[in-house]
Amino acid sequence: VGSPIGLHRVLAPAGVLPQAAERLDASPVVGADEVRVRVERLNLDAASYRQLSGACGGDGDRVRAAVLGIIESRGKMHNPVTGSGGMLIGTVEETGPDSPLGLRAGDRVATLVSLTLTPLAVTDGLARWDGLGEQVPCDGHAILFARSIAAVLPEDLEPELALAVLDVCGAPALVARHLPPPGGKVLVLGAAGKSGSLALAAARGRHTVGVVRDERERALLAGAGLASEVVVADARDAVALAAAAGTPADLTVVCVDVPGCEHAAVLATAAGGTVLFFSMATSFPAAALGAEGLAADVTMLIGNGYVPGHAEYAIGLLRSDPAVRDLFTARLRPRLADWAA
Amino acid sequence: VGSPIGLHRVLAPAGVLPQAAERLDASPVVGADEVRVRVERLNLDAASYRQLSGACGGDGDRVRAAVLGIIESRGKMHNPVTGSGGMLIGTVEETGPDSPLGLRAGDRVATLVSLTLTPLAVTDGLARWDGLGEQVPCDGHAILFARSIAAVLPEDLEPELALAVLDVCGAPALVARHLPPPGGKVLVLGAAGKSGSLALAAARGRHTVGVVRDERERALLAGAGLASEVVVADARDAVALAAAAGTPADLTVVCVDVPGCEHAAVLATAAGGTVLFFSMATSFPAAALGAEGLAADVTMLIGNGYVPGHAEYAIGLLRSDPAVRDLFTARLRPRLADWAA
Repeated sequence: VGSPIGLHRVLAPAGVLPQAAERLDASPVVGADEVRVRVERLNLDAASYRQLSGACGGDGDRVRAAVLGIIESRGKMHNPVTGSGGMLIGTVEETGPDSPLGLRAGDRVATLVSLTLTPLAVTDGLARWDGLGEQVPCDGHAILFARSIAAVLPEDLEPELALAVLDVCGAPALVARHLPPPGGKVLVLGAAGKSGSLALAAARGRHTVGVVRDERERALLAGAGLASEVVVADARDAVALAAAAGTPADLTVVCVDVPGCEHAAVLATAAGGTVLFFSMATSFPAAALGAEGLAADVTMLIGNGYVPGHAEYAIGLLRSDPAVRDLFTARLRPRLADWAA
Repeated sequence: VGSPIGLHRVLAPAGVLPQAAERLDASPVVGADEVRVRVERLNLDAASYRQLSGACGGDGDRVRAAVLGIIESRGKMHNPVTGSGGMLIGTVEETGPDSPLGLRAGDRVATLVSLTLTPLAVTDGLARWDGLGEQVPCDGHAILFARSIAAVLPEDLEPELALAVLDVCGAPALVARHLPPPGGKVLVLGAAGKSGSLALAAARGRHTVGVVRDERERALLAGAGLASEVVVADARDAVALAAAAGTPADLTVVCVDVPGCEHAAVLATAAGGTVLFFSMATSFPAAALGAEGLAADVTMLIGNGYVPGHAEYAIGLLRSDPAVRDLFTARLRPRLADWAA
């Protein structure tokens, strides 16, 4: 008998949830409430890719071997160092009769649950991937459970564009939930990135300050007109960031995927304000002890990637906000050209 | 010129906050807005002590040497593995003329900011400590900054009892802020511990379920009458915990100081509910990806150790709630006897 959260796919250790598992059963035979997807492409989590690339000295062949090794030994793409995964895109191949996901064979989908809990098998040795970026062309299959989340790709958007948006769609939905009243100030660290730009779009109508790391990103973001102000600062440097960002924010959103931004985010936030951490590089003790050490009365939220309606909301921002669409298209242009080829 | 958050005490790397620093200047000479405390006792963070004791195979002499080594090399008691510290108790020795903390020489105080950012020097080699517990008798000095927080120890309570309460005083204050309406359900993992029992006290009037790890703790907590129900379960076992805890909770409070409780907490919480993580062993990615993987629409909060008025609130709970006082006294009885001796 299957479990809606995939307990029956856990091989070791026994009795844990799929994400906590060391190893999953990635057998292609679907249970009554499961769905099998033929995989086209993996989208590795940025922190995971950065760690793997660093550990392999930037050597693409070694990165590819490392990713293959993880998938083969664990039955899922779950980076044991960062604890993170990513998502995938593919086509529904078979659905069990009791699957509640509403998918049909032939639907082109993106998974919105992490690769860290998705049974996955690769059949092409990732031969088409050069190991030099987060987007991994791939042949193989993945299994969705009854309580998995997958979005059918919108037909009016290039699939890679939709994938880039869906990968971070929890961020704008959660920002929208925690916005200060109109007139409030919203600070976004890592504002030129995917989740950062969507966070800014969700905060339209507030005074928004986008923090970016260099002049190139400043020009890109300022050109898009997504933020009230754009400033260049190192988000790991609490003292410098607080000076650059000006008056403390009512809501600070952390989208920078490097470690060490916790104290800066806390110091830049007003008493009574909120910090929303989306970066997987966030350290729980650094955030907790940082706020305590600064005697900062701020509410700190762990960015939950699931908010009901998050996929539709994020795709809607992309459709309705030309600035968001331009920014995503500019970031993805080289890859979109690949895709069309 | 001094900084209210102690930037002038950072030796390396330059320009970071004291908590992020590798090394602090623990010189006893106080700046104009600083306070020097003569240290009596350190209270190591539970996760930190557990890690050190484990790494030293439970050998008290090695644990003592490890703690001394950290303090001497870093100028603070900041465990580099867990990232956590603890707090201290002592007597105010000298206050700078511009200190805003309102302390006077001779005041007996407990620091409420972490040892991870408090300049500290030890002068007795920790010779009176056997290395076998979190409470460390100690002679030396510590420095408080203008924005540090310290509580004068209440005269009506044994100092060790007050210290035990103040160490976790952020927990009940934050629970009180995020309580569901009367009739709501509050689940506390690690309910027989210090922060857990204070969290239960702060949730009086709700339906409270205390989760403990064994029969001994169950008897202790049930005898105190602090929770509506007490159940025994392994808080790392998501599937078993959800079964033991019954209907999902509106607020789940994680006070268990072992890793791996994130998924269990999420699975035990109702859609629209809140999880409040106080354990320093919490993994940010495990919580974020766990909620996403379970398609769980829960608000997850990083337990901030600072809430205005937290010390007074927690001490007030101890004074007004005999069940809390009995539980703390029972836990501390052997040590309170030491103290009196």
